[in-house]
Amino acid sequence: MAQQKHFTLEEVIPGGKNYKKLQPQNMHLQWHGNKLVRIEKNTCAFYNGKGQWEQLFSLEEITSACKHIKSLDYASFPEKDIPVVCFHTDSIYIEYNWKNKEVLTQKKFRGRQHRDVSAVSKWMAYNLNDNLYVENLYSNEKRQLSQDGSHDIVYGQSVHRNEFGIVKGTFWSPDGMRLCFYRMDQSMVPDYPLVDISSRIAVLQPIKYPMAGTESHKVSVGVYDVQTKKTVWLQTGDNTDQYYSGITWSPDSKKIFLYNLNRDQNHLKLWQFDAATGTLEKTLYEETHPKYVQPDHGLTFLPWDRDKFIFWSEKDGFDHLYLYSLKEGKVIRKITDNSLGVVLDLLGFNIKTRSVIICSTGISPIQHNIFSVSIDKDMHMLLGGNTGVHGGQLSANGTMLADTWSSPDVARQIDLINTASGKMTKLLAADNPWKSYAVPEITSGTIKAADGQTDLYYRLIKPVDFDPHKKYPTVVYVYGGPHTRLVEASWGYMCRGWELYMAEKNYVVFVLDGRGSDERGLEFENVTFRHLGKEEMRDQIKGVEFLKSLPFVDSERIGVHGWSYGGFMTINLMLTYPDVFKVGVAGGPVIDWSYYEIMYGERYMDTPQTNKEGYDESNLRLRAGNLKGRLLIVFGYNDPVCVPQHTLSFIRACEDAGTHPDLFTYPGDGHNMIGRDRVHLHEHITRYFEDYLK
Amino acid sequence: MAQQKHFTLEEVIPGGKNYKKLQPQNMHLQWHGNKLVRIEKNTCAFYNGKGQWEQLFSLEEITSACKHIKSLDYASFPEKDIPVVCFHTDSIYIEYNWKNKEVLTQKKFRGRQHRDVSAVSKWMAYNLNDNLYVENLYSNEKRQLSQDGSHDIVYGQSVHRNEFGIVKGTFWSPDGMRLCFYRMDQSMVPDYPLVDISSRIAVLQPIKYPMAGTESHKVSVGVYDVQTKKTVWLQTGDNTDQYYSGITWSPDSKKIFLYNLNRDQNHLKLWQFDAATGTLEKTLYEETHPKYVQPDHGLTFLPWDRDKFIFWSEKDGFDHLYLYSLKEGKVIRKITDNSLGVVLDLLGFNIKTRSVIICSTGISPIQHNIFSVSIDKDMHMLLGGNTGVHGGQLSANGTMLADTWSSPDVARQIDLINTASGKMTKLLAADNPWKSYAVPEITSGTIKAADGQTDLYYRLIKPVDFDPHKKYPTVVYVYGGPHTRLVEASWGYMCRGWELYMAEKNYVVFVLDGRGSDERGLEFENVTFRHLGKEEMRDQIKGVEFLKSLPFVDSERIGVHGWSYGGFMTINLMLTYPDVFKVGVAGGPVIDWSYYEIMYGERYMDTPQTNKEGYDESNLRLRAGNLKGRLLIVFGYNDPVCVPQHTLSFIRACEDAGTHPDLFTYPGDGHNMIGRDRVHLHEHITRYFEDYLK
Repeated sequence: MAQQKHFTLEEVIPGGKNYKKLQPQNMHLQWHGNKLVRIEKNTCAFYNGKGQWEQLFSLEEITSACKHIKSLDYASFPEKDIPVVCFHTDSIYIEYNWKNKEVLTQKKFRGRQHRDVSAVSKWMAYNLNDNLYVENLYSNEKRQLSQDGSHDIVYGQSVHRNEFGIVKGTFWSPDGMRLCFYRMDQSMVPDYPLVDISSRIAVLQPIKYPMAGTESHKVSVGVYDVQTKKTVWLQTGDNTDQYYSGITWSPDSKKIFLYNLNRDQNHLKLWQFDAATGTLEKTLYEETHPKYVQPDHGLTFLPWDRDKFIFWSEKDGFDHLYLYSLKEGKVIRKITDNSLGVVLDLLGFNIKTRSVIICSTGISPIQHNIFSVSIDKDMHMLLGGNTGVHGGQLSANGTMLADTWSSPDVARQIDLINTASGKMTKLLAADNPWKSYAVPEITSGTIKAADGQTDLYYRLIKPVDFDPHKKYPTVVYVYGGPHTRLVEASWGYMCRGWELYMAEKNYVVFVLDGRGSDERGLEFENVTFRHLGKEEMRDQIKGVEFLKSLPFVDSERIGVHGWSYGGFMTINLMLTYPDVFKVGVAGGPVIDWSYYEIMYGERYMDTPQTNKEGYDESNLRLRAGNLKGRLLIVFGYNDPVCVPQHTLSFIRACEDAGTHPDLFTYPGDGHNMIGRDRVHLHEHITRYFEDYLK
Repeated sequence: MAQQKHFTLEEVIPGGKNYKKLQPQNMHLQWHGNKLVRIEKNTCAFYNGKGQWEQLFSLEEITSACKHIKSLDYASFPEKDIPVVCFHTDSIYIEYNWKNKEVLTQKKFRGRQHRDVSAVSKWMAYNLNDNLYVENLYSNEKRQLSQDGSHDIVYGQSVHRNEFGIVKGTFWSPDGMRLCFYRMDQSMVPDYPLVDISSRIAVLQPIKYPMAGTESHKVSVGVYDVQTKKTVWLQTGDNTDQYYSGITWSPDSKKIFLYNLNRDQNHLKLWQFDAATGTLEKTLYEETHPKYVQPDHGLTFLPWDRDKFIFWSEKDGFDHLYLYSLKEGKVIRKITDNSLGVVLDLLGFNIKTRSVIICSTGISPIQHNIFSVSIDKDMHMLLGGNTGVHGGQLSANGTMLADTWSSPDVARQIDLINTASGKMTKLLAADNPWKSYAVPEITSGTIKAADGQTDLYYRLIKPVDFDPHKKYPTVVYVYGGPHTRLVEASWGYMCRGWELYMAEKNYVVFVLDGRGSDERGLEFENVTFRHLGKEEMRDQIKGVEFLKSLPFVDSERIGVHGWSYGGFMTINLMLTYPDVFKVGVAGGPVIDWSYYEIMYGERYMDTPQTNKEGYDESNLRLRAGNLKGRLLIVFGYNDPVCVPQHTLSFIRACEDAGTHPDLFTYPGDGHNMIGRDRVHLHEHITRYFEDYLK
């Protein structure tokens, strides 16, 4: 047998020098209309349907037409029907017709942020010096839409701190002639004083940070008409303590739909506005819940019927798709039945078969599989394999699907699938990137949650040189919070690189997705309402009980590690079960939910005023004196998410209580360490466990 | 033998619960004219010269006259000749005549800072909302002297960051009718953004921090006349890059004297101004030096001759006193000859014998002894014992001296000494506070500096249970910077409490005052000019060589610890001699002298522009990659002296270089940890050595 290689942090941590080497082969694919295009640095080719890739153009050709393009990586194909490739980087926008070998338009940018182009009208919206502009990429005509943009008044950017599925602040109408945009007045929100220490003398780097229970920003929605050059404002009423999400245009560009959610996040309204006047025309739909409602997805109109759209709701306990008729003014069908599990993604439609292509947990809670689901009838069909974790891209007419997937034993595969027949063609089967390495045994299974009923999925990694007669130190890696899960049936059960590394250093690593985590439905998640941490810890302790039942786990040497919500969990577990965990490493932790932001925080915790007990119970400062084992807390010195006040106030509380955590920080970094710092971080974390858990 | 007790951190660290228990007994003494008064919580008594203390008044009596006084600790006796006691606390000013049993005046304060009372005129200067006021403590008349006080414009406070011996900003004329005061314009100095994390949402706590090589504040000196109600400004000329120190009034209240020093700190002028007009009348004296001059002491007029004053100068290599005649316009005598070592303090005069009473290193470089020195002749006499470290208070006419002292074997003694005859009466001989404890062997001695010539003094503490056949881990505690020394012939050779504690934990502790430190004269100190750290480290390495020559020191387990300048030294030593020091703990370190303030920094280093090589050579960031052993850095999160940018930028540099220091911080604390935090700090430091040096 050949000598097996050992994983290094430079190989297994993103940002490591040899990280790419251990990533499975991939293909960068995009649909150009109904043609599948493969983008490589030096060439773009399309799939001819007969097993071959035929070159469309080379980098050389593009560079000779436009010297600013040094790689084809940024190529995109927003035009369905003409041979045009677009390059839109941080500093340039280019459209090139590769048939005519002609540059159609070319623009350079400086300081223009949040750029958003209508592929139809070629108007681009952007933000410059805090104000909103539009500019025509062909005519070069430029217009300033706002005048009072500032640190306090934000235009055309994501609002509500990216909660409710909001990731941007401009929305072109389908005809590209109207721009819907957010305006956020955050003048009443205090600055959190972050500090940049990299300048000659350290300087303030203030961010607006609305903390739970305090006054919140006010958001309004404007609509600019390119033809009339006028802006109207959607007549939403008093914007105090209101959230607006899911902004969607009607296919005819005349109506705007959005969700209105109250600050308490328990009463949702779907509103219809006239885009020309801003008039609120109708409340189409309402949903309430004693805990919270999450309007994270916009509407999707049927391509063949402009009267009907699909919306998402968890009202039956799981995310599902519903069909709404504007004419009838009501929900007319639930499209996805509960056998499809939790719907995760809506990829598009096969127009011919009148079906919607979705991704869901229909086969297993730890899988993502793709289904074609009839809009009209209770019928669905699995597309692609029935194992693993799949994600897809649909052709323009929805007849073909590029399905990229992996499973515990398959590093990556890409199949081209006919969405009507289900017929598959394999485009890529990646080699096992770990094949020359000593790989630990990675298994997954279920245990019962602390409620005695619910199945929870775990991942267990054994030491590389496993000896069943030995007892090993064991690290529990934890997240525990909503909207994330760590165990899935993808390559190596989604084992993180650091876990491979720790297995090599003779640790057992264990990861359990407890109640409160993602993709298991509403009740699984909202059991944590108003007392974050409590049920999540009970489930993690079930995991520890399971670990202790394993003969090779050393019960005296159990450590815990987690980041963000997982940092909160790590410290909470150390303080709540001081005799269980000998060592903990917490990163960017929440210490006190009243220091967290309004949108996320109040959804789960209500306000400090209305839920004092819950806030106190989860305030780790109040239990700083319980610290017994060794605890390292690491934070990004410029973290705008879990602001440094969390960690620093906990350190202060420990000092006052006479306990001794350890501390580390990455100046200049935000909530997560990326690049080289991520490698350094994992060296640091590993050293801590080696110092105190070995 | 009785069981010996062990020192705990609560006993040996200031701020510890039982710290006071281990402090030697003391007496709180003050001169009331020529009467020696002993102040206790409940009673004030005077010494009758025959071995008895006779009560002046009791707390009960004071409290019945003024209920706000709960303790006599704040009693003072500013009036020489009348039976009046004064209580001036943070919130109240009271004068009480204990013969008449009469409250003479009583005032309560709110927010009045930097209060300064003329005992003659009873006018009080103070600062309120950034402006300067005076108020008569008898008539209650109040006047606002400045209008434009702000964060940028500072009135009546210490300037130049307390360098040049400046500790306050208001100076009453001897007749109490004129107030000389500083005004500092620091509008051109950037704010350093400190952050207070103890509020609901963290808030900015900006401080003006002028860093070496950048634009500096401008100071001017005003004189307010209580009678004319007018302010004149001393005509100092352009105040850009000028320092003003040593402000002194002539005995007739008509003239003001001060030192003017250029920014380069190598050209000193002593100026005389007319107090009524602000006119610069004369330059009395000038001094230059290729390195720097330090005008840290004001003038002292002879009580019997208003024409003559004493000033201090290091021009002969050591701090000495010189007599200046205004009439003759020149220095007429050097009062203290070099056999008196370094003059440290001028306590006053014996008017009858026409002598000045000083404290100096005349007997040994590590002792402070008191001498009566003739003003007119080359004659001096030792007052008090010839061992130990003495400090004294003189009676009004200077005939009697209360001498408080200790020596390596004497915890504290207080003698009353006749300054003419030298006759002594013992007032207090404190018990040995360590007598029931297991005390380590503490010795002192000398080694040669790296220059091969200079004697350096060390302190060596052996483990409590010392076994000469064993090898012990050894911690070098270091400061190394100017204006401080750590080894002196006071109680236990000034052994710090933590050293006792470490000796108990079986460490050897070693402290060496290298070249660059205090009380050894000009050349001993200024050898470090333009390359701070270099010679100081060479000397510390001499200390390590000495340690390695001791059979009981384990050369493989040498650690180093220091704070502030000692933090700079600790990290520098770790990076420069990575194979010598296994473990280091650095507190509040300087990392880059260009981040330090102008006054202190440029004195020793010139500017980053004129001494790039020196700044680079001492910039620890540039050698962050050399870190090999374990290094813990601790800093006060609100440190206004060595701002957090030092430590944080070093952490950043280590991250970039792939090295791994450890970090800790005390939110809310400044440059030093005090109170309970100081105990916590030493638990933390001890744990670090126990983890990695044992």
